[in-house]
Amino acid sequence: MRVKDLKNLIVKIFLNFKLSKEHSIVCADALINAELVGAPSHGLARLFSYCNRIKKKVINPKPKIKIKKISQSITSIDADNAVGFIGADLGIKHAIKNAKKTGIGFVAVKNSGHYGLSGYYGERAAQQGFVALCFTNAPPAIAPHGAKKTLFGTNPICFAAPSGNKAPFVLDTSISVINRGKIRRAAKLGEKIPQGVALDKNGNPTTNPRKALDGLQLPIAGFRGSGLAWMVDILSGVITGANHGGKVKDPFDDFTGPQNIGHLFIVFKPNLFVNNYIKRIQENIKRIKKLPKIKGVKEILYPGENKALRFKINSKKKIFIPKNILAEINELNKG
Amino acid sequence: MRVKDLKNLIVKIFLNFKLSKEHSIVCADALINAELVGAPSHGLARLFSYCNRIKKKVINPKPKIKIKKISQSITSIDADNAVGFIGADLGIKHAIKNAKKTGIGFVAVKNSGHYGLSGYYGERAAQQGFVALCFTNAPPAIAPHGAKKTLFGTNPICFAAPSGNKAPFVLDTSISVINRGKIRRAAKLGEKIPQGVALDKNGNPTTNPRKALDGLQLPIAGFRGSGLAWMVDILSGVITGANHGGKVKDPFDDFTGPQNIGHLFIVFKPNLFVNNYIKRIQENIKRIKKLPKIKGVKEILYPGENKALRFKINSKKKIFIPKNILAEINELNKG
Repeated sequence: MRVKDLKNLIVKIFLNFKLSKEHSIVCADALINAELVGAPSHGLARLFSYCNRIKKKVINPKPKIKIKKISQSITSIDADNAVGFIGADLGIKHAIKNAKKTGIGFVAVKNSGHYGLSGYYGERAAQQGFVALCFTNAPPAIAPHGAKKTLFGTNPICFAAPSGNKAPFVLDTSISVINRGKIRRAAKLGEKIPQGVALDKNGNPTTNPRKALDGLQLPIAGFRGSGLAWMVDILSGVITGANHGGKVKDPFDDFTGPQNIGHLFIVFKPNLFVNNYIKRIQENIKRIKKLPKIKGVKEILYPGENKALRFKINSKKKIFIPKNILAEINELNKG
Repeated sequence: MRVKDLKNLIVKIFLNFKLSKEHSIVCADALINAELVGAPSHGLARLFSYCNRIKKKVINPKPKIKIKKISQSITSIDADNAVGFIGADLGIKHAIKNAKKTGIGFVAVKNSGHYGLSGYYGERAAQQGFVALCFTNAPPAIAPHGAKKTLFGTNPICFAAPSGNKAPFVLDTSISVINRGKIRRAAKLGEKIPQGVALDKNGNPTTNPRKALDGLQLPIAGFRGSGLAWMVDILSGVITGANHGGKVKDPFDDFTGPQNIGHLFIVFKPNLFVNNYIKRIQENIKRIKKLPKIKGVKEILYPGENKALRFKINSKKKIFIPKNILAEINELNKG
């Protein structure tokens, strides 16, 4: 489907589900961006789930969002259980606005939901010339080090910075070996997942995505990854006022209440301490790109470079929609 | 040796090497803390290197440190090639001071050196009731993803937060599978290193610490760890005005100039967005501690808990000093 047509269709669906025009566009843009950067696990594959949660009254289509200015740098947002994209969109916007004024913007969002790709928000700050750190928590998927039950989400860490090139530096790394969306999508499409990324509920390695979803995902690097996931849970859950400590509800099969996910954004100007940031980052990237490469590697890419390339290519093409997801979209379009 | 006697001895050594009394105490405290928390790789094993760099005129014993207030929240520090502990000590102090005033403190330090354990600085913020993120870069030890030459340091990520208990939550994780100090200490003591943490210069796995130091350390989680190391290099090097992109000199064998390491500290009040932070973090920790444990695990510990316990135990005992390190200390004490 052409990007424009797909956007119109998704906006129409969200309007059917009682979102405002403005919010529908925010949601459509975020979902389509995920498709365009080559992360379909965070794109159309999730549309049904967002709509389903609205239908089950655990996402609020008409949120009364409260924005509280704590200082010129610090803002607190209560997203009133809006679709996650909406609270996150406001969060990064206010963080950028505050950073423009004071050099640093610090924004917490609570009562939000799954906000898609962290990199989407970091990238927007970087494209406007700012450095960003974004944190968000997620439903249980990873067992804390020493435990045999999941509690942490895949809790991504996102860091974005202007690169001096069109494609900003955007690191968006989950704390699991692979992201949960990829496992969900594999389950949806009947595909296998790689070995070594998950255990079934009995603690045995599995390549079956459904068994993995019922079991545990493995954190990167044992206690280090577990510690980083815990850090993200504190930053985005404990500190923001959102759910934390395993209380974030699964968006796909827990309709007992809103997710109440939290997001935390730290945004600042890159030229606070140096007057030649762009020259410095370009020198940094150049040095790394010039290193001798391991066999088979043509070019060393910085985080975000590949995604930007995919975005450019995919924006000119039609978006491929798998059959079963197209069926969901058509169903949703009927209202 | 008793802690008090050891401190007096180290202070005397730094005084011999022309540091001020105040700076000598800052350095002695940092080194002894590393011993007490059970991280001797960052303790006395490094004393000789600091003094040697002063002797070779690549550490400045009489720095004229410049502290520039950019706003009530933001401070820039030029450490004038002081021992790393001194710039970092000022950095975290100013970040805490700024956070006290405005809610958030943001401090960059440049022209600094190896500052020991990141957790030491994070912990101090947390003990005073603040949340802290600390970043610092380091000499080349890890190859960027796709490269076959080292460039990134082991670039630790540190996150600290009050826990409501005596021991704060302090995550201090390097991006390498094990920290470089442990490899150096093994080399010094003639011990082996574990398998799977390093390659020799020909790219073959090795358990020989000297071969590992000449070769590559492996990052955690492949491109994820490589991306996190790159993030830390940008945050603490590119943004602060310090060396970056592989230009940080090795403290042990490169005397062609100062290291010019950078540090970045983000410190904030935990109660900005909630009015019951301590209750929330205690609930968070409680939920995780109550999870069913894997076989052999008695208790799930949060990051920093074990270190605090070791600190408590070790503070009551004499500090054990390996023979060859004691010989170095005695040599340094002669002046």
